[in-house]
Amino acid sequence: MPYINVNNDLPGIRGLMAFSPETAAPMGDLANALLKDTEGLSPAERELIATHVSYLNDCFYCHHSHGEIACIYLDGNRDLVDQVRHDYQHAPITEKLKSLLRIAGKVQQGGKKVTTEDVENARTNGATDKEIHDTVLIAAAFCMFNRYVDGLGATTPTDLSTYPPRAKQVAENGYGRHIFSQHQPL
Amino acid sequence: MPYINVNNDLPGIRGLMAFSPETAAPMGDLANALLKDTEGLSPAERELIATHVSYLNDCFYCHHSHGEIACIYLDGNRDLVDQVRHDYQHAPITEKLKSLLRIAGKVQQGGKKVTTEDVENARTNGATDKEIHDTVLIAAAFCMFNRYVDGLGATTPTDLSTYPPRAKQVAENGYGRHIFSQHQPL
Repeated sequence: MPYINVNNDLPGIRGLMAFSPETAAPMGDLANALLKDTEGLSPAERELIATHVSYLNDCFYCHHSHGEIACIYLDGNRDLVDQVRHDYQHAPITEKLKSLLRIAGKVQQGGKKVTTEDVENARTNGATDKEIHDTVLIAAAFCMFNRYVDGLGATTPTDLSTYPPRAKQVAENGYGRHIFSQHQPL
Repeated sequence: MPYINVNNDLPGIRGLMAFSPETAAPMGDLANALLKDTEGLSPAERELIATHVSYLNDCFYCHHSHGEIACIYLDGNRDLVDQVRHDYQHAPITEKLKSLLRIAGKVQQGGKKVTTEDVENARTNGATDKEIHDTVLIAAAFCMFNRYVDGLGATTPTDLSTYPPRAKQVAENGYGRHIFSQHQPL
């Protein structure tokens, strides 16, 4: 049960967003701009970065929600998502994505942890300025979303079978400001 | 100099926002919704929370930018802003604000650091659900803004006299999506 009375039974961030629609609207828009963009990083790569950072922040709701969305984009390859979550260095992904996940992991620890060498390494592996920018901002944004969910003790379903149906909706319809008004179970 | 070529000379987050207007728009809207709202917490209290969290995250640009805005709302009382930055427990502020700053400091460390006792303590000191919600989200949002600025090595003016003129503009006009297009020195 959340620390505050959100006046609804929606799980995770959705219950908080329904409580505060004024802040939910720009948060939904930001998630959409960062995660559904197809220029540079693919939506699958964006969701993998979000999943990895949420895992590092130990946010069960977020790393399962976004892991399931990544899984849809990756044609159901849940093993790959799991490996990126725990051990991306040995996952069968591009060197470019590995170097961006390294930057994302640094951002999770703190902005100043990112070094010139981290950025040069990503660039050597083919990352563009936009891809580096988007990686840093996705990682930073999930340091917000994760803290919002766990800092208010949001309801977190532990039954993993409840995550895929909601992931399918988001993969199809995006994160726009409508998401907090959909009163589905997840 | 930022790690990426932002194609402008704007300082701090403004240079990054001009580079990426698609993500800047919802970030500006979120800042406006969180920091200019007058229901519950005052704009001064909101800016003090933002300043304290940015100080904990060691984000020079953000804690000076928001500290100056707080200072305007507090009729120029820079000593109070400095004390809240470093040592809010002994600052001449309400017990309610102290208990909310304690929650904000926990959120800065991680969402799961917040305890039922922290929230009950804030409630005992008069905080409402909305005030607790807004405190957690302001703290979480600055864990994003601070990481965005420092994770991309944004240009950070060290001359403190450059911060007050910009603070005056924001205090008067808000944070809307227009802020990244104002090509003033700060």
